[in-house]
Amino acid sequence: MPGEQPGPERRVVKLNTNENPYPPSPRVLGALAAAVNDGLRLYPDPEARGLRTRAAAVYGVPPEYVLAGNGSDECLALLVRALVDAGDRVAFPVPTYSLYETLVAVQGGTAVRVPWPSDFALPAELVDARARLTFLCNPNSPSGTLVPTARIEDLAQRIEGVLVVDEAYVDFARENAMALVLRYPNVVVLRTFSKSFSLAGLRIGLAFGHPDLLAGLRTVKDSYNLDRLALAAAEAALEDLDHVRANIARVRATRTRLASALTGLGFSVVPAEANNVFARRPGVDLAPLARVLAGRDILVRHFPTPEARDGLRITVGTDDEIDTLLAGLST
Amino acid sequence: MPGEQPGPERRVVKLNTNENPYPPSPRVLGALAAAVNDGLRLYPDPEARGLRTRAAAVYGVPPEYVLAGNGSDECLALLVRALVDAGDRVAFPVPTYSLYETLVAVQGGTAVRVPWPSDFALPAELVDARARLTFLCNPNSPSGTLVPTARIEDLAQRIEGVLVVDEAYVDFARENAMALVLRYPNVVVLRTFSKSFSLAGLRIGLAFGHPDLLAGLRTVKDSYNLDRLALAAAEAALEDLDHVRANIARVRATRTRLASALTGLGFSVVPAEANNVFARRPGVDLAPLARVLAGRDILVRHFPTPEARDGLRITVGTDDEIDTLLAGLST
Repeated sequence: MPGEQPGPERRVVKLNTNENPYPPSPRVLGALAAAVNDGLRLYPDPEARGLRTRAAAVYGVPPEYVLAGNGSDECLALLVRALVDAGDRVAFPVPTYSLYETLVAVQGGTAVRVPWPSDFALPAELVDARARLTFLCNPNSPSGTLVPTARIEDLAQRIEGVLVVDEAYVDFARENAMALVLRYPNVVVLRTFSKSFSLAGLRIGLAFGHPDLLAGLRTVKDSYNLDRLALAAAEAALEDLDHVRANIARVRATRTRLASALTGLGFSVVPAEANNVFARRPGVDLAPLARVLAGRDILVRHFPTPEARDGLRITVGTDDEIDTLLAGLST
Repeated sequence: MPGEQPGPERRVVKLNTNENPYPPSPRVLGALAAAVNDGLRLYPDPEARGLRTRAAAVYGVPPEYVLAGNGSDECLALLVRALVDAGDRVAFPVPTYSLYETLVAVQGGTAVRVPWPSDFALPAELVDARARLTFLCNPNSPSGTLVPTARIEDLAQRIEGVLVVDEAYVDFARENAMALVLRYPNVVVLRTFSKSFSLAGLRIGLAFGHPDLLAGLRTVKDSYNLDRLALAAAEAALEDLDHVRANIARVRATRTRLASALTGLGFSVVPAEANNVFARRPGVDLAPLARVLAGRDILVRHFPTPEARDGLRITVGTDDEIDTLLAGLST
């Protein structure tokens, strides 16, 4: 289940779905306004050539190494549908993004759930899982923790299957694994425009990987999976990276303050490299606390799984929103 | 493979992908312009409640009978993924929309291809196919022909599996099968905003069917499958049906003229109820003729299959475009 999306009538502090608190680039809004025209009667480019060319230049890979998805959720679904047959093993550390398990179940695969250690270091058991597909959400959700690229490279060398590094949150982190894509034909890196680019309302994701691997995804992809406006927005977003970098800097500064304040309130906080902080009280189910906050119109995310129920995933909002949250937690 | 989408640099008469030659409603463009704002940083409603409520009112069904897809192509993919297991039989008359066969192959199902008779009357063999899922494109592509609703109702009563009536083109036809959805829990009707609503560039489709059946589709659907702008456009489009009806009337008038002229040029033309005419020379492969037209910057659609290669699927364009096409065919 996705996080709650309140209707427009409620005024809430919404820190539950890791959206960016700052608006998208004015250049994106300008490009969208220009694309709202009679040309919408025509189908979009099924190969997203303009976006892929631009993304290739920004991320330093050839355009053949790029596939555009209707959100990185679609990229994840394509990977599972293209690579997993009934009974195939799919490994991932838990707790993590819940969609991995959902997609594996739909496809009839076998999920191999490897617990993260308490410090969220990469579990060595992932190598032993002998999986057709391994998902690594990095930074991870809900923990917000980052596995260093050197550890990911080591994993890519040691496993036989495909390693998907889901970098939805990586623009808020200190490093990323994009360079591995050109060196390891079994590595796929996923990016999204929903977080750092402030475009969750459009649905834009990118998969980076070896062309042979992406060819398999194309065979199971809807032809016209991205609409004309999403394509226009994504291209424009990649033309204004300064805007994104400024928002990232603001989010990181607020994140530092939030993590420090939560520690001061007695929560256990692991180092946060995403646009959220994971605040735990080890062994204590925090569902009641999430409900108390919701009663004060402050939405944070609680996952009722055994691995995550002692934590709250709190999106880094604006400074005002974080002040409201901290006041709500203190009273 | 989808139809060719020429780059913006070429000036062509584009009659190859059944797009609407007339622009979308000004109210749609206005709603889109209003939705291009900072709210794009937030995820869309995963349940598309506003659109489903509006569609329910327009089409006379409860909102629980409506599911929104990223184009009706996604609705088709959801149906196959939710209902077809490896080896399950999926029946459809041929020639028809090629995506049915592609989706069945991806899912590992068994396609049961039942030839249309020369008059495109509903083949009785569909009942004998004992399929888990039966696709009926109605009006059909590429023929543009319509099976009467009474025949579809008879089929729905006689088959055990699910009958999907793909009504992508039905707004250009004289009747539709929407009323069957409330009477038969095994009937799904699909609609798209790509044809009569002139919004192929956004990706909006609707599936109408029994809530129990749609629940199965939701389990395999990406949460946020439609973006905020597509949702805003679709809602606005359903508020300005007069615009759509006027464009449909224009297309139908031009279609009558085109069919008559093609008959005069010696083509065999079946009665057209879609926004295209299927012009045949029985037994003659028309690939060379399609290439000649393309050389004159007139794009029509040729399908190289045994059942369809003696025909050209010609989209009903503007009157000027059809004049250019007819001149190109006459010289």
